[in-house]
Formats: sequence, structure tokens, C-alpha cells
Amino acid sequence: MSLLVVGSVAFDALETPFGKVERTIGGAATYFSVAASFFTRVNLVAVVGDDFTRKDAAIFRGRRIHLAGLERAPGKTFFWAGRYGNNLNDRTTLVTELNVFANFNPKLPSAYRDSEYIFLANIDPTLQRSVLAQARRRPKLVALDTMNYWIERTPAELRETLRHTQILMINDAETRQLSNEHNLLRAARHIFKLGPRTLVIKRGEHGAMMVHDDRVFCVPAFPLEEVHDPTGAGDCFAGGFMGYLASVGRAGDAQLRRAMVYGSVMGSFAVERFGLERLRTLKRREITARARHFQQLTQFKL
Amino acid sequence: MSLLVVGSVAFDALETPFGKVERTIGGAATYFSVAASFFTRVNLVAVVGDDFTRKDAAIFRGRRIHLAGLERAPGKTFFWAGRYGNNLNDRTTLVTELNVFANFNPKLPSAYRDSEYIFLANIDPTLQRSVLAQARRRPKLVALDTMNYWIERTPAELRETLRHTQILMINDAETRQLSNEHNLLRAARHIFKLGPRTLVIKRGEHGAMMVHDDRVFCVPAFPLEEVHDPTGAGDCFAGGFMGYLASVGRAGDAQLRRAMVYGSVMGSFAVERFGLERLRTLKRREITARARHFQQLTQFKL
Repeated sequence: MSLLVVGSVAFDALETPFGKVERTIGGAATYFSVAASFFTRVNLVAVVGDDFTRKDAAIFRGRRIHLAGLERAPGKTFFWAGRYGNNLNDRTTLVTELNVFANFNPKLPSAYRDSEYIFLANIDPTLQRSVLAQARRRPKLVALDTMNYWIERTPAELRETLRHTQILMINDAETRQLSNEHNLLRAARHIFKLGPRTLVIKRGEHGAMMVHDDRVFCVPAFPLEEVHDPTGAGDCFAGGFMGYLASVGRAGDAQLRRAMVYGSVMGSFAVERFGLERLRTLKRREITARARHFQQLTQFKL
Repeated sequence: MSLLVVGSVAFDALETPFGKVERTIGGAATYFSVAASFFTRVNLVAVVGDDFTRKDAAIFRGRRIHLAGLERAPGKTFFWAGRYGNNLNDRTTLVTELNVFANFNPKLPSAYRDSEYIFLANIDPTLQRSVLAQARRRPKLVALDTMNYWIERTPAELRETLRHTQILMINDAETRQLSNEHNLLRAARHIFKLGPRTLVIKRGEHGAMMVHDDRVFCVPAFPLEEVHDPTGAGDCFAGGFMGYLASVGRAGDAQLRRAMVYGSVMGSFAVERFGLERLRTLKRREITARARHFQQLTQFKL
């Protein structure tokens, strides 16, 4: 089934202990849609400036990513520069230039308005809701990402958008901030009162945890000897997760568990190289092989 | 098969956001032996002072814990006082009084010298090695715990003891410190050159990870709504892990995975109440039920 994503397409400058790149394509919606396109068709909604060339757009070509919703606006594309220390969990933002993203007002092309699966990447909760308002019919599943900025600055708007959301997909610090609870199970119970019925907590090198109803499912991060660049790992996780669910058209317990695994698989590939480099050459059979590897990593018999 | 443990028996004063206790029995060897005794017979080697009463020793009675190696020395029992903040990973040591533990020189009763499974809890590596030297024949499996103090102060002695160790069981900070590698897989490869063929990394609320040969196995921490007191969780983990292995008398991949689960089960019970309170009333069927719960927490089908 078709999967819609709204979020940022950006140019990133990245620096990690393994090297640096001056300008590479990034942004949550880019990472998400490339990851999800291995599983299903993706309808991309985002904005780029007039510095975004045909060569830049090559990342989307040859994949099941529809670009009718990729708006071009006069000005420069969103630019972000960041640096990671030896502990790749510590990220320093060096530059954020919103550029055309500052006036982003997502418009859904007619062909997108029947999308049954929707992922609202981390943008202003008011814009996230405006996307839902443009849907022709009620989507089957809406998932949402957000960050400390919106939790602190626009709490009422975020709460209103959460009322229309089934899956909240954030990291552990954001979970604790949003719920004002340190314990993640109590935090989940708090969040379920706001609308979502499933909470997916992304924990970086510690993997991911899902709480839905009374069930908890945990998946570790894939152990890698070298993590070159963690940028986009969370968005690739979301892309694998939602891409898998949209591809099977169901979201029961078994499907949600598999979605957690495919999310982790995509996140683990993303961090192996800088930016989207690893995903450019990734093959579907490598995804299948790594999912099996996740089984070896976690399965036991009593 | 018989399992020997050498380590501390202590009195603890504990303070967490959930309350405080002024004086409760603790110490690594205590937590370990109580946890392991649910699985197998335990030979305890430790020292207590003349303030250690018959009532204090009640924790060991009615369990499969042999006390022939529990030495009584004139003076006071090892005393430790600690406080935990809201983030239960942050522990502040308030008082450490070694007392009779300062002159501890472990002596194995004759009946202990054929123990096939040995756990060297966190004490001076020279004393750990002296225990191995007293074994009548080569043990089937030796596991060792240590801490930053010995890694920094007695690195040569620790290395010599590690040469005789098959399983090293430490936390992630200690793993990184001992190996001088931030990445845990590289750290494992470094540690394998020192002697152990299996590395078990205890990660608190993030669970545990085992590396042996080219295999990695991860188990999450059990999600609890209230963690009352993390003291002894790592030692109960070790007790469940080694107790299970000694009970089956094998340490192949399948057994090691199950040992990781039973270790996590015992650690998860330990933190539910203060000190050893939860383990006092624990039943074997509760252990079995929680191990199945760990399966629900981690298992998926592709």
C-alpha cells in the first residue's frame, strides 16, 4: 500500500571521527523515503531550493519514490552541519540554515491524497496536522516523529497532532521529556492517553523498544565494528518500519515486531557509511540476510 | 555440578528514591550465591566479622549453599553505604569500611577443591588467582568479574588472572577501560587475546551482550515500572548465569544463550525490592515464568 512521508530534504555537512563530507544530500524525508522504498511505494512531500540539481535528485531515481510532492521554491535548500565525537551519541549542531524550509507549507498532490500509511517526520506539529487534513479519507496508520524543540515550544499543537496519531516514534530522552516520567513503561502509559496506541523508542546503540497495549518488544542495535556516521539512522529506522508495515498492509503484533526488525536493519546499514552512501548500493537480499542475522543475535530456546 | 564463588559478604546501607535501609546483608558473593542456589549447589568462600550473627546467616539457610568456606575473623564485617539518584545508573559510594575483608585470604575447604564451575567475584586479582591455585584439578569453567579499581591499580596481576579465565563478566565502562576500545566488538577481540573466550557485558537498564567466537547475543533488561534498588543486580545476573551453566554441565552456544536469559531474570528480580528482599521469597516457578516472558519480549518470526 502507498506510504506518504512529509519532512525535510536537506544538504548536510558531516564530521565524525572517521572523516568528513562538505555537502551531501540528507534530511529526514530523504533518509526515510530511500529506506522505505526497498519495501513499498513512497509518496514524498518536501521542499527544495533552486540549488537542488538533477544530479542531487538522482538519489530518488530508480526507486519507488514519487516526486510529485517535492516542491521547488526560489532560494537555497535547507542546510545542516553537525559534528560527532568519539562517542557517536554526542552530536554538536554547527549550522542550521532553514532557507526554503522556513516557509514550507506541505501540499499534497491529488494522487497522494489516498495514501493509507503516513509518516510525519520531525517538523512543526501544525504542518504535520495540515498534511492529515489534506487526506481524502482516514488513513489506516499515522506515525509521527518529533523532537525536544516542539515538545518545549509548541506543546499544545503537538498534543493536538498526537490525537490523530497511532504510532509515536521518538528517542528515549524525548519520551522522558514528553511524559515527564523517567521510567519508560510509565512514560508509555502517559503517552497512550495522548492518542498513540504504540510507542517506539529509538535508543541508538542500545537498539529500540516498542510498547503497545500491555506488550513490550525489544530489539538490539546491530553490533558493528565501525559506525562511520549515525546521521539519518533514526529516519532509516522509521523508513524500514513503516515501509514494511505498508508492504504487508497489516499492523498486528507479529507485523509490528517484524517492522521493528526491518527498521533496525535499515538503521544499521545507514550508519556503516557517510550520509546515504551505503543505501545507494544496498540490495534487497542484503536486507533479508541482515534480518536473519538479527534473529541469530536475539533468539534462544528455553 | 558444584559451583564455587569467592567474593564479599557485607553489610550495606542503601538509599534510593524509593526509600532507604540502614543495614542489610549484601556483598557480591551473597547476591551471587543466593541467585545461583535456585539452579545448583553453591560453595561459598568469603569472610565475615564477629558481628555477623546467626540471624544474618539465615539468608543462606534452606538453600543449597555450603558455608564451610565462610570464614569468621575477629573484627567487623565489610560495610558499604551507597546512594542512587533518580537515574538509578548514577551511584554514589558514601562509605567503604573493608574491616575483616582487608585481610581476606581465601582458603578452600577440602570439599570445595573439586568444584568444576568457579566464579571469581570482584576482589583483588591476586586473591582470585590464589583460589584457582587451590583447585585439586583444572575446573571446567572459570568466570571472573572485576572493576575499574583493579584495571587501574593492578593491571599486570589482572592480566595474569585473566589467562586462566574463560568468561569475563563486566560492565560496558569496564570493557572499554580494559581494552582501550570504545567499540564493544573491537573491545571483545582485544579481551580474547588476554585469555577469555567469552565476554559478557552487563549494561544495566540496557540489558546484556555476550560475544564468543564470532557470535553475538543480546538480551534486554526486563522492563519494570519500578526499580527500587539496583544493588546486586550484576551479581544476581552472574549467579543466574553460572548457576544455570553448572546445573546443565555444558557451555555450548545454546546453553550460553539460556544462561544470559536466566542471568537477566535473576537481575530483574533483584532490583524489584531493596537488597535481597525479593530473592528471599522467590519461587522457582516465578523464574521459569519470567524466562518465558523474556521470550515474548524478544522473539519474532520473519
